Amino acid sequence: MKKLRAAIVGYGNIGKYTLQALQATSDFEIAGIVRRHGAADLPAELAPYEVVSDIRQLHDVDVAILATPTRSVEAYAKEILALGINTVDSFDIHTQIVGLRRSLDAAAKAGGAVSIISAGWDPGSDSVVRTLMQAIAPKGVTYTNFGPGRSMGHSVAVRSIAGVRDALSVTIPLGTGVHRRMVYVELEDGADFAAVKAAVLADPYFVNDETHVQQVACVADLNDVGHGVNLVRKGVSGQTHNQLFEFNMKINNPALTAQVLVACARAASRQQPGCYTMIELPVIDLLAGEREELIGHLV
Amino acid sequence: MKKLRAAIVGYGNIGKYTLQALQATSDFEIAGIVRRHGAADLPAELAPYEVVSDIRQLHDVDVAILATPTRSVEAYAKEILALGINTVDSFDIHTQIVGLRRSLDAAAKAGGAVSIISAGWDPGSDSVVRTLMQAIAPKGVTYTNFGPGRSMGHSVAVRSIAGVRDALSVTIPLGTGVHRRMVYVELEDGADFAAVKAAVLADPYFVNDETHVQQVACVADLNDVGHGVNLVRKGVSGQTHNQLFEFNMKINNPALTAQVLVACARAASRQQPGCYTMIELPVIDLLAGEREELIGHLV
Repeated sequence: MKKLRAAIVGYGNIGKYTLQALQATSDFEIAGIVRRHGAADLPAELAPYEVVSDIRQLHDVDVAILATPTRSVEAYAKEILALGINTVDSFDIHTQIVGLRRSLDAAAKAGGAVSIISAGWDPGSDSVVRTLMQAIAPKGVTYTNFGPGRSMGHSVAVRSIAGVRDALSVTIPLGTGVHRRMVYVELEDGADFAAVKAAVLADPYFVNDETHVQQVACVADLNDVGHGVNLVRKGVSGQTHNQLFEFNMKINNPALTAQVLVACARAASRQQPGCYTMIELPVIDLLAGEREELIGHLV
Repeated sequence: MKKLRAAIVGYGNIGKYTLQALQATSDFEIAGIVRRHGAADLPAELAPYEVVSDIRQLHDVDVAILATPTRSVEAYAKEILALGINTVDSFDIHTQIVGLRRSLDAAAKAGGAVSIISAGWDPGSDSVVRTLMQAIAPKGVTYTNFGPGRSMGHSVAVRSIAGVRDALSVTIPLGTGVHRRMVYVELEDGADFAAVKAAVLADPYFVNDETHVQQVACVADLNDVGHGVNLVRKGVSGQTHNQLFEFNMKINNPALTAQVLVACARAASRQQPGCYTMIELPVIDLLAGEREELIGHLV
């Protein structure tokens, strides 16, 4: 069987774990890695691979896994979909997902390709669980409680603020879907902490949550990529109340995000052209292997 | 928007809860109830509905919800699919699902209809969670721990044994996917307990589990339809070990089964002709409502 040829676009934290996740599969080949600096300052683990600065320099790419910051996903995806290459991303601004889906749906159909967006764990695999819980108990309330753990999207948002050398945003679950954000910032020389703090508090990522910003000497000393979720629903199935559902996980955050990206890169090859969120995919399409065997084993 | 017209085939425990679940929706109309005895001895709650002995006596049925014993699902489904009517069932013999899917896939395609099988909670919604867990941590072990609670499939199997007036099979979780079956039987006058016990122990439903069979005076006094599941996976995402996932629920069993049947009856109207298990459906198709609104709310 022909292997799927995947390109990794961006080689930060998620890109590194995506490489590991692709290496662990038997149905993918690594077409190459796309980095801004191409093959300059090459990390040792990339030696066996083609490393380029533009995806057009790679051949026969079936799918591009976008391991780029959330805010540059749309531009990269449009460019790559126009080449007829499928894209997968872990775009994580919940309020902008519907808009991104519309925009990339048009781009994907024009390119005859498939785009799967917001393919991480939340949004992503948690979204599948939330949707299932809603379907099996249509009335009721679902609470998504995150953490304790680092939020990559939130940390990246703080890092993009002028004067910030490094930053860490830790999510603390307060129950019933309410969270505290603990933000640790390491400043560039001469930066103004008060200005940075104000910028964090005004950022759309933080504006709705209780947020504490602290200056530290070295963010790297605080970093731990463990994370968790506790998803709870109490609801009504038909006319029967007090149906109780709960999903918990304790995970390495970038490793899980990368794994979801790879599973969705596989699923992309099985959809009609267009843009999809994970709740629009049959979960079986995330898996390698023969269909009847999977059904016999998992249903 | 045109409502979906659903027929309920069989009016036992699941049929009653299916009626309640359909009544709680805004996108379904009840086309009627199909009972062996038609409108004879009509329960009060069926007075507003058409009650017939053959589905051909109902008009414009979009989907038939099979609330029949598992072992008669295939025959009913084939007959109804041939009429071009979608079917949904909660067939629950795990080892026979692949075979049923093949058989009903042919029947569904011949009738230009859709069949969704094994649409309960296990197999069913649990299968979706199991598949998702496998996708996001491809290496590892998943344990499905049931109960404590009554197993409908197992209880029905015992009730079909000669000499049994009523029966209850309670599933006790022993951990790591191992279960004890506590079987309580109320015998018909003159029935031989030893023969009944031997028949239970030899039944495919019980042959692989530690099973205890006890005779009681009145099974009805023991009945409680609460049930639960604890689905656990510890696995590897990419090359990162110790990823921990858990899904728990405590539910009214027939109410949840009926709700899943109704959600799948809705999903059936959105698939191409053929037969599907729940892991082959996009979870969004289980829900009523506008697609972009659901995505904005749930992803």
